[in-house]
Amino acid sequence: MQRWERAQALAKESEIDALLVTPGADLRYLTGYAAKPLERLTCLVVPADGAPFLVAPNLEVSAAESAGVDVEIVGWNETDDPFALLASRLGSPRRIAVDDQMWASRVLALRDALPATEQTLAGPVLSHLRARKDAAEIEALREASAAIDRVHARMAEWLRPGRTEREVGADIARAILDEGHEHVDFVIVGSGPNGASPHHEISDRVIEVGDPVVVDIGGTTPVGYCSDSTRNYLAGGQAPDGYLDAYAVLLVAQAVQRAHARPGVTAESVDRVGRTILAEAGLGDLFIHRTGHGIGVETHEEPYIVEGNDLVLEPGMAFSIEPGFYLPGRYGARIEDIAICTADGLEVLNSTERQLVVLD
Amino acid sequence: MQRWERAQALAKESEIDALLVTPGADLRYLTGYAAKPLERLTCLVVPADGAPFLVAPNLEVSAAESAGVDVEIVGWNETDDPFALLASRLGSPRRIAVDDQMWASRVLALRDALPATEQTLAGPVLSHLRARKDAAEIEALREASAAIDRVHARMAEWLRPGRTEREVGADIARAILDEGHEHVDFVIVGSGPNGASPHHEISDRVIEVGDPVVVDIGGTTPVGYCSDSTRNYLAGGQAPDGYLDAYAVLLVAQAVQRAHARPGVTAESVDRVGRTILAEAGLGDLFIHRTGHGIGVETHEEPYIVEGNDLVLEPGMAFSIEPGFYLPGRYGARIEDIAICTADGLEVLNSTERQLVVLD
Repeated sequence: MQRWERAQALAKESEIDALLVTPGADLRYLTGYAAKPLERLTCLVVPADGAPFLVAPNLEVSAAESAGVDVEIVGWNETDDPFALLASRLGSPRRIAVDDQMWASRVLALRDALPATEQTLAGPVLSHLRARKDAAEIEALREASAAIDRVHARMAEWLRPGRTEREVGADIARAILDEGHEHVDFVIVGSGPNGASPHHEISDRVIEVGDPVVVDIGGTTPVGYCSDSTRNYLAGGQAPDGYLDAYAVLLVAQAVQRAHARPGVTAESVDRVGRTILAEAGLGDLFIHRTGHGIGVETHEEPYIVEGNDLVLEPGMAFSIEPGFYLPGRYGARIEDIAICTADGLEVLNSTERQLVVLD
Repeated sequence: MQRWERAQALAKESEIDALLVTPGADLRYLTGYAAKPLERLTCLVVPADGAPFLVAPNLEVSAAESAGVDVEIVGWNETDDPFALLASRLGSPRRIAVDDQMWASRVLALRDALPATEQTLAGPVLSHLRARKDAAEIEALREASAAIDRVHARMAEWLRPGRTEREVGADIARAILDEGHEHVDFVIVGSGPNGASPHHEISDRVIEVGDPVVVDIGGTTPVGYCSDSTRNYLAGGQAPDGYLDAYAVLLVAQAVQRAHARPGVTAESVDRVGRTILAEAGLGDLFIHRTGHGIGVETHEEPYIVEGNDLVLEPGMAFSIEPGFYLPGRYGARIEDIAICTADGLEVLNSTERQLVVLD
């Protein structure tokens, strides 16, 4: 069964008359078409009944065909109104679901073109499918993780005192491409106090002897699956007071989370077992984010491993396990692996050293 | 006057009670903050009256501060509802404007959180500002164009018969970074018949002797401005029948468009003068897209140089001039420069060879 057929079945169950999907991860997942998010409207329509079709600018039609889109393609010309075209093809649906990342400009144009139609989100339908990886997707994630592991394994080539985060990051970005990715998604090099901001990316700060450095990197492979792994390095010298003790606790917390995650436990329980350990060591207030996020055709997708998410893990779910601690103005650390829930446990896809790696 | 102050004044004129701007080019333009488009809500609010503020997840607050955000930052915790927080700060606005690329998930969540509030697009306000570049932006675009020119100037290092488009494209991508960009935005290598699809990107097709190759490339510089230039190469040998004659016409059409564009003429007239020349040579049906797009913090933004756009060009407007011809199954060509409307004419930012470049 094709993916759009499964989406169609779920849409029907959810009393959605049509799913509307614009360029992005959902479209690539459903059709294989990695359309660019351009200002001209491209939109896949999956009706609850009947055949799906893709509305696309005429000048993108051959690109869509080359990408293997095997549904009807309805082209439009540079001066046509694609929303009027969509509305005429859709008739008068009671309820349509738009992809979660559809641009506001399209959401509002659809509202104007279909004023009597209720709008809801396609996210629940599509994330239900996307969160459950098939064998080919799991293999693609294994390859992506192996590719980012090869980059971490080479970190000593680039990361040393006297270089800026930006210089190190530029080398890492090249290596992300060289080691098997098609795109660099993000490069975080958080040295010393910059490591205390979980989403600090890159700065002109010069790395100093004794700096702990958080390196969180990821890319997308040619088949469209993402990698994401965080490791921690010490740029020679002595780590700051308190850092090594906290790091030892973090290693335990992350290992316990990996041991806990399996089919039948909830997403939030994976968060909780790690948070408890950090809290018992007095680090609870420093673990300021959730434990993880799903990963696949996007770096962040469902399931989220976070307090309040009582989703029960199932085989085929892929997600990060990445507890951390962040001491403002001083330092931070985070250990992140991508893992896949298997029939009876967890397959961890990253395998580089989780201990603090000392680079001299 | 800060950019958000000018946006505020325009919002007030447009009877918009507040502008809401999520991560993307608009947010970077208004605040300098290149926030990642994450699932956690970050949203700048610019009320028509009063001070702006940024709603952001607590774990992004230090990144926002480092990026120089100088408005109040309202943080929220991992388990808070940021839309409820937004709504409580906004009160009961009559009409809010959301950024054009805001995700549907946010648009619909805002509708639920503010059910009595009318939603419109912030695009007209923000694109009015963004389309008129100041001196610093013009200098940033000059630097971006010079950077992509350096990549085109090196094309002979990579483009030759026997290599695949993908291999050539990977080398180009590295050079885009090496020559002064922070991100690769796109790499189009359209060889032979692949050149006939304007938005073909990269394939495993092996480049053959006698192939015309369309190379359309761009990136974003560290200060956040985009480059975009298309040149045409012949991989040795003899061009296909008819190609050189058509190319000679294209050169003339593009030169006439550059000579025509200046303050006081309409965007569509720039399109028309080129289209007329191609049509007179029997190539009108092969020029299947508009002439150009604005460029700045995004590769494609206003003003669009297209039939039907009667916008009058003003000094400071930056846009591409990129006519082309596309013969399905055979070949295509496109000549693209970025140009800036000056007080009395046009400053063309790209300066590499526009003639067909023969690589042996």
